Amino acid sequence: MNIGIVGTGMVGRAIAARVVELGHDVMLGTRDVAALRARTEPDAMGNPPFSVWHEQHPKVKVGTFAEAAAHGTIVVNGTNGAGSLAALKQVGEANLNGKVLIDIANPLDFSRGMPPSLFVSNTDSLGEQIQRTFPHVRVVKTLNTMNAYLMANPQQLNDGDHTVFMSGNDAGAKAQVAELLKSFGWPDVIDLGDITTARGTEMLLPIWLRLFSALQTPMFNFKVVK
Amino acid sequence: MNIGIVGTGMVGRAIAARVVELGHDVMLGTRDVAALRARTEPDAMGNPPFSVWHEQHPKVKVGTFAEAAAHGTIVVNGTNGAGSLAALKQVGEANLNGKVLIDIANPLDFSRGMPPSLFVSNTDSLGEQIQRTFPHVRVVKTLNTMNAYLMANPQQLNDGDHTVFMSGNDAGAKAQVAELLKSFGWPDVIDLGDITTARGTEMLLPIWLRLFSALQTPMFNFKVVK
Repeated sequence: MNIGIVGTGMVGRAIAARVVELGHDVMLGTRDVAALRARTEPDAMGNPPFSVWHEQHPKVKVGTFAEAAAHGTIVVNGTNGAGSLAALKQVGEANLNGKVLIDIANPLDFSRGMPPSLFVSNTDSLGEQIQRTFPHVRVVKTLNTMNAYLMANPQQLNDGDHTVFMSGNDAGAKAQVAELLKSFGWPDVIDLGDITTARGTEMLLPIWLRLFSALQTPMFNFKVVK
Repeated sequence: MNIGIVGTGMVGRAIAARVVELGHDVMLGTRDVAALRARTEPDAMGNPPFSVWHEQHPKVKVGTFAEAAAHGTIVVNGTNGAGSLAALKQVGEANLNGKVLIDIANPLDFSRGMPPSLFVSNTDSLGEQIQRTFPHVRVVKTLNTMNAYLMANPQQLNDGDHTVFMSGNDAGAKAQVAELLKSFGWPDVIDLGDITTARGTEMLLPIWLRLFSALQTPMFNFKVVK
């Protein structure tokens, strides 16, 4: 399958590495390809520069936001929540309409100090904002409730015995995404319902951030015991 | 131990039944004792009238809000979130100061339809509001992230192999509460930190409510897999 990923940070890289490993044809999209390739310093989070990562993952194609989305039959939003709507507008509706958009972004607001709060929550969500802005895109919110490494490789923790959630209005899109998630190694994919249920998963971030602090590791996840 | 419980709904009853079973001396507090005893109809949630429940739990004492709190060395806030501050003001500071207050309430706002949203979240929480209103009370937020029956009897689900969270400013109070929780059958009690971390657990309610709808049962809980 052709997969386009918007965003070259931790999330974009983790998903790209995994889907290439699974045999898909992947293009990562960035705002400015030359600038991305020219960077030689680790980013603010301490991740190595893209060029170093790319040497280890040479099968991943690189293009602009628009090229990556055009490449994908499934498109992944791996940008920061605060920049997601702007990045997707730069991608352009024409490259997204009719496609499945896997939205992994969280509406984190760092302006009020740490841990971040959310810039939209409770009666709305970033997932809904994206769906409203792109009404002909089949948005599926998922994978936004755990560390980037676990998203793509859930078997790294407790043999994958923990949970991933999914929200979206389009049943066919969710079926495709569930299949992809299962190929990543997720045995427990819970469909919460329509895109308004993204409020629930985005509002998990505040406890995730505090657990990260209490447990001193990002390698944990929620399992719904039933 | 003497335990006072403010509120005679599902949460108050479930905790009262369990702590009596564990040998504690318990008083449930209500706004109007005569009115509570006189009720003969099930409540809006379909729970049997208090008198029916009380016949099955005769060891539980009943008093006013103030009497129940005065009775307890530990006091439990089992009221609805929307009424918690008013109820605790009726209890009165004198009956609460210096004591451990276990706050189980969630700030559910039913005014915008179902599922409810939260009337405080993101940059504040009900737990913090209670702590600010009663600065000399040792507030511990806990048990607010699962069904009332599981709160008091976690072993009913998966042999208790799931998680309860705790937030509060007072380490000694949290140690006492953790001991009580362990006596309920909770093996995994995670201390998230100070009372501001109650934002994290209260903001779990939106996904809890959607899981309730997706799974068609309230008998589930989160386990932090690490």
